[in-house]
Order: sequence, then C-alpha cells, then structure tokens
Amino acid sequence: MTKGKKWVLEKHFQGMPKRSDMKIVEFDIPPIKDGSVLLEAVYLSVDPYMRPYTARFPAGITMIGQQIAKVTESKNADFPVGTNVLTMAGWVSHSVSDGKELIKIPPYPKGVPLSLALGTLGMPGMTANYGFVDICAPKAGEVAVVSGAAGAVGNVVGQIAKIKGCKVIGFAGSDEKVAWLKELGFDEAFNYKTIKDLDATLKSVAPNGIDCYFDNVGGEFSSTVLSNMARLGRISCCGAISTYNDTKPLMLPAVHGTLVFKEITMKGFIISTYKDRFPEWIKEHVQWMTEGKLKYKQHVTKGFDNMFDAFMGLFSGANTGKAIVEV
Amino acid sequence: MTKGKKWVLEKHFQGMPKRSDMKIVEFDIPPIKDGSVLLEAVYLSVDPYMRPYTARFPAGITMIGQQIAKVTESKNADFPVGTNVLTMAGWVSHSVSDGKELIKIPPYPKGVPLSLALGTLGMPGMTANYGFVDICAPKAGEVAVVSGAAGAVGNVVGQIAKIKGCKVIGFAGSDEKVAWLKELGFDEAFNYKTIKDLDATLKSVAPNGIDCYFDNVGGEFSSTVLSNMARLGRISCCGAISTYNDTKPLMLPAVHGTLVFKEITMKGFIISTYKDRFPEWIKEHVQWMTEGKLKYKQHVTKGFDNMFDAFMGLFSGANTGKAIVEV
Repeated sequence: MTKGKKWVLEKHFQGMPKRSDMKIVEFDIPPIKDGSVLLEAVYLSVDPYMRPYTARFPAGITMIGQQIAKVTESKNADFPVGTNVLTMAGWVSHSVSDGKELIKIPPYPKGVPLSLALGTLGMPGMTANYGFVDICAPKAGEVAVVSGAAGAVGNVVGQIAKIKGCKVIGFAGSDEKVAWLKELGFDEAFNYKTIKDLDATLKSVAPNGIDCYFDNVGGEFSSTVLSNMARLGRISCCGAISTYNDTKPLMLPAVHGTLVFKEITMKGFIISTYKDRFPEWIKEHVQWMTEGKLKYKQHVTKGFDNMFDAFMGLFSGANTGKAIVEV
Repeated sequence: MTKGKKWVLEKHFQGMPKRSDMKIVEFDIPPIKDGSVLLEAVYLSVDPYMRPYTARFPAGITMIGQQIAKVTESKNADFPVGTNVLTMAGWVSHSVSDGKELIKIPPYPKGVPLSLALGTLGMPGMTANYGFVDICAPKAGEVAVVSGAAGAVGNVVGQIAKIKGCKVIGFAGSDEKVAWLKELGFDEAFNYKTIKDLDATLKSVAPNGIDCYFDNVGGEFSSTVLSNMARLGRISCCGAISTYNDTKPLMLPAVHGTLVFKEITMKGFIISTYKDRFPEWIKEHVQWMTEGKLKYKQHVTKGFDNMFDAFMGLFSGANTGKAIVEV
C-alpha cells in the first residue's frame, strides 16, 4: 500500500457537525528517514473534546485526535516493527513520526484488550481518576453524582466512587445505558431524557445534598445539580457536551451566590496537564480490573470511513462506554 | 440605665432594604446570673453578609451581626469588668452572655485602635487572608484583580497581593475610593461606575490574563472577569453584593465551558469555617501593620440609632474601608 487516508476539516462546524464539513483525502505515504517510523492506525479514539478543539485551528487541518497505531516500518531503534503506540496523529490511517510524541503501550495482563489504552487505561480513565479522586476528594459515605455516566469517563468515575465508598447516582441518556450503570454497581441510575423533574429526583435520592459532582455535560442539568449541592461540596468540571453545539452562549442563573453560601468548589481541568501522573493511575486501574472492581464496555465502529458517524454518536447518545473506531 | 435598645427585623427585605422593614425596640436589661456578664456595645460591625443572612431567619429576629463590647458587670471570673470582647449579639446596645461565645480581644500594639477587631484584625481581614492566600494561592509576578476593592475585605486583599508580589488591579465605586487604592499601592485602580468598557480595560491592564480574582461582587462584573482569566486561574468567591437585593435570579452566560477549557478553579467560602486559624492570621496582620505594609481606613457612623443608614451605605457605595457604628 502506498496511499493513506485522512479526514480533513473543510469548514468549521456551525452548531451540530455536518458530514459536508469534512472530507476524506487520500495521500501518498512518504518514505521514512533515519530516526523515523511508519505507523498504521489500529484504533481511532472518538472523544467529545474533538468538537470544541477544532474551533482553535484553521479550517483545512486534519481532524485531531489520539489513536493506537502499530509500527510497520522502523528506522528508530526505540520503536521496532510491531510496537504498539499511542499517537496524536489525528484521524489518519498512516503517519510518520520521529518517535518524540509517541507513548509505548505496556503489555497488559491476559484478557485486557489493547484498545483500553484509549479508554479505561488511557486518557478517559485518567480523566476520571484525577477529576474524581483529586478534585472531588470523596470520603466514604458521601453522595456522588455523575452526568454522562455511561460515557468513557463517566462509567469509570462511578466505579471509582463505589471503590471509595460513596453512594453513587448516575445519569445517562437511554434505558439501556441505565441498565448497564446498575450492573456496574451504581446505587441509583436515571435516564435524564425521560425523568420528569431532575430537581425533585435529586432531592429524593440525595435528601442531605450532593457532596461530589462529576460534570461531563454542563448546561441546565449542571445548574440544577449545583442548586442541590451540600455544604462544602466539590464539583469537577470535566466537560460541557450539552453546550458544544450551541451557536450562542447559554444563559443560566448566576452561580456566585450559591458558591459562597454553600462553600462550593468548582474546578475545571484538562487531563494532559497532569500527564506525569498517568503511570501511577494506570497501575491503579489495572489493579482494580484484576480485582474485578473496574469493568469496561467499548462501543466499536468498524472502518476508517465510518469515523464521522462514530463521532456523531457522541452527540446523539448512541454510544455506551468508550467509543472507538477499528480501522 | 435599665433599658437597652435593639434593632428588630419587622418583615423580610424585598429587594433593597427599607427603613420600615425594621424598628428599634427598647427592652429591660435583665439582672445577670452567676457565670454571666453584662455587655455594653462599643462598636457595631456593618457587613454585606447581613443582607442575605436575614433571609435564613424568621421575621421578628434581632438583626444579626458582630460587635465589640465591654464587660460592664461580671459574675464570670474569665471576663472581669472592663474586658473588651467580640460577640455575635447582633444590633443591640446591651446583652447578657455566659461567656461561651465571647472572644477576648488581645491588647494591640500602640497606635492600633480597638475597632480594628471588626476590620483588618477581625473577620474581614481574616476573610481577605484565607480567601486570597489559600484560595488564590498567588505567586510573585502574577496578576490579581479585586472587586469591591475599597471595602473592608477588598482593601486588605489588595495589600496582601502586593506583599505577595502580584500586580494588583482594583475596582471600586468612586473616584475617591480609587485614589485611596492608589495610595495603598494598587498598580491599577478603576471606578467601575464610570469606566466605559470593563472587558477592554481588563484586556489592556492584563493582556496575558488574570491569574487571581478575588470576587466580592458577583453578577455581570464577575462574568466579564471570568472571561479574561488566564489558564489555571483561581477565583476566590467571597461575596456577591451586586445581586443581594435582586428579586429574581440573575441570568449570566454559563460558566462550565470556560472553567474546563481554561482550567479555572472557583471556590466559595464562609470565613467562620476557618476560625481555628484566626490567631495565626491576626499575628501576621499585626506584623504587617507594624512594618507599614498593611494600612487601614474606617468609615465610622456615630450613634446606635443610625445603624440602618450605615447598613444602607454598603449598597450605595458610601463607605470607604471598614464600616462600623460607634455606639
């Protein structure tokens, strides 16, 4: 094969992304120089951050993102042929690297699939660990709420919350997802699309207030959760997927008074800031998986050309667990 | 004298407090029992929190608040006649206490007035220290913004920010206040009532963004500051005085996306939660005063019967520095 394929952002998204905003472009795979490797994509990651981040780059870029790739040609002794790596090459089938930005994927215990390097043992899992353990600082017996709970990050947050001894309340977007959350051990799980009254639901399952809120969605949902926080509560602001496709700023009740009088902390974060701590968290997650305390689910779409559909699944709520594309 | 006076909340405030919402009531000063003391108010504190806190209590209560009082009769060996104390007795001229909630005011160095126990060496000063040093965690060379900067808390925040090596930008509500902030060493100070464009002003004085924001006001002002924060910025949410008299919730642009993508922390607090640390902070403030690094101003209203007018000065912006009533 001498041709590769990549997804190019033709024009910036306006509201919901459209298929016509992107196109698939073929390119010649260049020969590699001394010190470089040729990588072939194995799994592409599908993540919510791709929507807001594209706005930071000019139209014409290759769509950004992480992938698991295999070294298929090597002139770099650190990365022999057959090595599995993580790369930020984007939505591409083939790429050339000098190795500097590559992360080798360590061998996992038997039965743990390679693809988890994009999920529970990768960026989403690390996001769950830092955002919940460090920011929410849960204590046993506290009440934790997770939105986007059946997503790649949210399901890990909920399972860690159980490990830490919390009462865990999850919200997701379908009855099937809710059923999975209950399988995972969530104490309460709700389909946010069909519950009648979020405020009343929160008051009934958390009558003394919510101590920890892991926020994947933002918007009005999070405004209602804020008003149900307990004194000295902590909110981990991980994402705001409910607003990523908005074309004008969403107006919500001012937060300042609530933050003061309930002594609430809200902290936003981007996980790459804490990448030095990934090895420690990966080890912890592998341990929990081995003990049967941390389960996973992957939503696998097959075929490089179906990447756009997989991406849109994030916004329609089609995915349960970590969304990936098998190239 | 056998009669005392107190301010009673006749009915809950609707919007801006009105004189007719309160009345002054005379009462008989009771004889004291063994273990108790009779206190005579010397200075009443005038603070913004009094507005939102009254809503938590039934109508008919004595208006809440702290005061400096002197022991005038004593049947408690721990508090002999002449002892100066802090008490939460409220807006009253005389009160009886068993001593449990009283805090003795230690002797201050020569030239430091007793009344500072309600200001720089009291709750507002402690609020400034915890809220700025602990929450904003300033580093030398960082940019700090303070709203309500000429108030009892704000002026201390700005001076501590200078001590910590920050560039300090203050906002207050009159040209006279702005002149005082410049005397105190603020690098930039603005009258928020007369600047044309807050967003443009912030961008010009903090072109690389704001690292620390000490928020006394909330509302749209704070929304504009948030949009000018630097990556990894910290916001100390101390108060929201601009909204305390609102009769319906103020709607503002949602904060979630900004918190995530700029990795911002917002933390609300009530200083009484940290009262165990007051002695350490008082010592630090006395030291700074002795070194000439921490100055103060008091806005003194004379006469118990003028307490309502002093209180209203908080909302009209009449006060520079700490507002107190000399009984």
